[in-house]
Amino acid sequence: MKWEIEEILALISEKKYTEVREKIINLNPVHIGEIIENLDLSEAILIFRMLPKDLAVDVFNYINTEFQEKIIYSITDKEIKHIIDELYFDDMIDLLEEMPAKVVKKILQNSNVEERKLINEFLNYPESSAGSLMTIEYVDLKKDMTIREAIEHIKFTGINKETIYNCYVIDGHRKLEGIVSLRKLILSDYDLRVEEVMNKDVVYVNTHQDQEYVAGIFKKYDIIVVPVVDKEDRLTGIITIDDIIDVIDQENTEDFQKMAAMAPSEEAYLETGVWTLAKNRLTWLIILMLSATFTGGILKKFEDVLQSVVVLTFFIPMLMDTGGNSGSQSATLVIRSLALGEIDEKDTLRVIMKELGVSLIVGVILSFVNFLRIYYLQGTDLMVSLTVCITLLFTVVLAKIVGAILPIVAKKIKVDPAIMASPLITTIVDAGALMVYFSIAKLLLNI
Amino acid sequence: MKWEIEEILALISEKKYTEVREKIINLNPVHIGEIIENLDLSEAILIFRMLPKDLAVDVFNYINTEFQEKIIYSITDKEIKHIIDELYFDDMIDLLEEMPAKVVKKILQNSNVEERKLINEFLNYPESSAGSLMTIEYVDLKKDMTIREAIEHIKFTGINKETIYNCYVIDGHRKLEGIVSLRKLILSDYDLRVEEVMNKDVVYVNTHQDQEYVAGIFKKYDIIVVPVVDKEDRLTGIITIDDIIDVIDQENTEDFQKMAAMAPSEEAYLETGVWTLAKNRLTWLIILMLSATFTGGILKKFEDVLQSVVVLTFFIPMLMDTGGNSGSQSATLVIRSLALGEIDEKDTLRVIMKELGVSLIVGVILSFVNFLRIYYLQGTDLMVSLTVCITLLFTVVLAKIVGAILPIVAKKIKVDPAIMASPLITTIVDAGALMVYFSIAKLLLNI
Repeated sequence: MKWEIEEILALISEKKYTEVREKIINLNPVHIGEIIENLDLSEAILIFRMLPKDLAVDVFNYINTEFQEKIIYSITDKEIKHIIDELYFDDMIDLLEEMPAKVVKKILQNSNVEERKLINEFLNYPESSAGSLMTIEYVDLKKDMTIREAIEHIKFTGINKETIYNCYVIDGHRKLEGIVSLRKLILSDYDLRVEEVMNKDVVYVNTHQDQEYVAGIFKKYDIIVVPVVDKEDRLTGIITIDDIIDVIDQENTEDFQKMAAMAPSEEAYLETGVWTLAKNRLTWLIILMLSATFTGGILKKFEDVLQSVVVLTFFIPMLMDTGGNSGSQSATLVIRSLALGEIDEKDTLRVIMKELGVSLIVGVILSFVNFLRIYYLQGTDLMVSLTVCITLLFTVVLAKIVGAILPIVAKKIKVDPAIMASPLITTIVDAGALMVYFSIAKLLLNI
Repeated sequence: MKWEIEEILALISEKKYTEVREKIINLNPVHIGEIIENLDLSEAILIFRMLPKDLAVDVFNYINTEFQEKIIYSITDKEIKHIIDELYFDDMIDLLEEMPAKVVKKILQNSNVEERKLINEFLNYPESSAGSLMTIEYVDLKKDMTIREAIEHIKFTGINKETIYNCYVIDGHRKLEGIVSLRKLILSDYDLRVEEVMNKDVVYVNTHQDQEYVAGIFKKYDIIVVPVVDKEDRLTGIITIDDIIDVIDQENTEDFQKMAAMAPSEEAYLETGVWTLAKNRLTWLIILMLSATFTGGILKKFEDVLQSVVVLTFFIPMLMDTGGNSGSQSATLVIRSLALGEIDEKDTLRVIMKELGVSLIVGVILSFVNFLRIYYLQGTDLMVSLTVCITLLFTVVLAKIVGAILPIVAKKIKVDPAIMASPLITTIVDAGALMVYFSIAKLLLNI
């Protein structure tokens, strides 16, 4: 594929346009998009105009926003109108959301009143709702059609539908009565009626439902398209699986960001400005920095212990880091299991018992390794070594239990579990670990 | 839906089986599966046997492994054979991989020599290769068929195919010549030949390619199924998008686990034993614990500074935590952008410049807030306050630059960037931060 693209780019630079056209129109639209993105604007427009109209729209859909914008500015209003008319409705809405106001105006000027009303309605669905994901190009059928009639209807109206693989059976008020796949239609006796082969146990979502919920429905039912109904149960659109894959990536990115103590952002990293990036990171950093004051306060409280046995200070970073890492492991597993629906609140006790077991095993082994190192290898005082190792065991257990419980508690009180990830847990566990450290030190070292 | 399930469960407990059957056969297989999972084994088997055979297979596919196993043990060999015959090949392979050896034996006894050979071949594809995801139920066409013949062929052979929405055009040696969607066939003139409507720029993958690569192909081309070819370019199977969604979830889970310093595991949390969980977490905890020794060593080296100005100790946790959090933010964004293909090596300089900008903004604000707190509110000595705040600024910059660069370097040397996440970066940044802290302290405090 790479080779073919190179070849066509060479032909373009040699201005052998007839040959270019011949080769290019047989390519996958994604590959044509890649070629266009590699050209100067004037050449890109030339190649773009060379494409048959329907292919041009497909290609337009696959090139990056920056280039889309340039193309919109460089082509005639008539050409813009054609792109608008041929783009699927959801792709057009996405386009409008990404383009600067000037471009949006230019596009809206080229659509009629009816379209403009619909566009505004769609632009108003809350971001990340089912409504914002759906498109309006679906096939609807009536239940008293024969399958032969249904297939004729699909042949007649299907050209501009985003998918024809699932058809929706609606009544006179557009209420959803059933669903039938093209597969079922094709494989059935053509004289049967749609009603006889349609599935009445229809899986659907509502326009206001969250995209994460919608993604869950796709996973649960292994479907490739889901119908969307409005408050009055009328069919208003469909959501196709290609958009759901984007949702899954986006939700995961948000979780990664929250777990690293950042405000989630949808924009790609390189396209986000320095100030926005800084703003997204600052809030949590300030909160966590101020919380770390408590830890400093504990050190201050035990100033006398620290001054009489300075060597205790040297193990503070190791205890803090190991506590943070242990807690972050548990929190991550629990947050992820909650997100994938593998565990819920009723599993709390099982999770705690599991983490207790794991933390005891891990804690004992770590303490043992650490004892070998600091007592035998470094020749640290026996009582100090014991203080460090007992604290280490305690810290690992505390970290893992806190790390496992906090995300579940968060979910119960309707807070996103992802924010209960390592940074917050580290701060909590630090304080606990140091309290225990100095208490044990006082006891064992008679300070 | 919930209500309907409750109603049917009630009918079952009243033993009104005729009514149950009537209601249940119109339900979505996923919902029937939910009902069965709510029953005792004997009732579950009863309901399962009540289903029309094809529906029974669909339902079987949606119930959990534990219940599947119980059902296999409780039904006759003839019934097992029917399930095996009707399951899609990829689902059967998944089933075999999850069942205990005894069950696998029982299942294999019920398949013929030919099938057993194919099963063994599929069980041998490396885990997470394209081969391990594919199924063999696809529709193949010849290029000289008319579309009418092609549709008749699909009607005749399509019943047992996992998808009929994409058909593959192959030559006499099973080499892939083109692809045509059912949509294209239905919407075209039935007298045309397949060759005239098929797409020759076919997107395909190889059996040995990694599942993450395959998922990337689905995203890039917005496709719902991809053909898989063997080393000799012969069509050997197809991968459908429902399996890709599982792959995306799985790859994300692995990244979450690696980023929290754990060995990745595919098993669900609650189904993983305590010893396995402990083992997955121990390696990194030990490595990081031992690395934290360096940090302790730095404290030891500056013992004199610590002893003369004990107050410096109190700010160590805050400096370490803030450094860790800052670095983890940058590392997470970069790791995620690398995983989604939004950035690559050639963007290294842009990333560094961006992080430099962000870290200066964030660092200055954090230092300022911190200065207000420790100098004005807590009345800390001016020179100590300055030492802490200058170190804080330096730590944030260091953490963000290191956090951004390490994942890119990892990718360059073919190591998974995800392991360069917060735990490792925290350990590195801790050491750097403390070195600077004491150097500045020595300078400003004349120790």
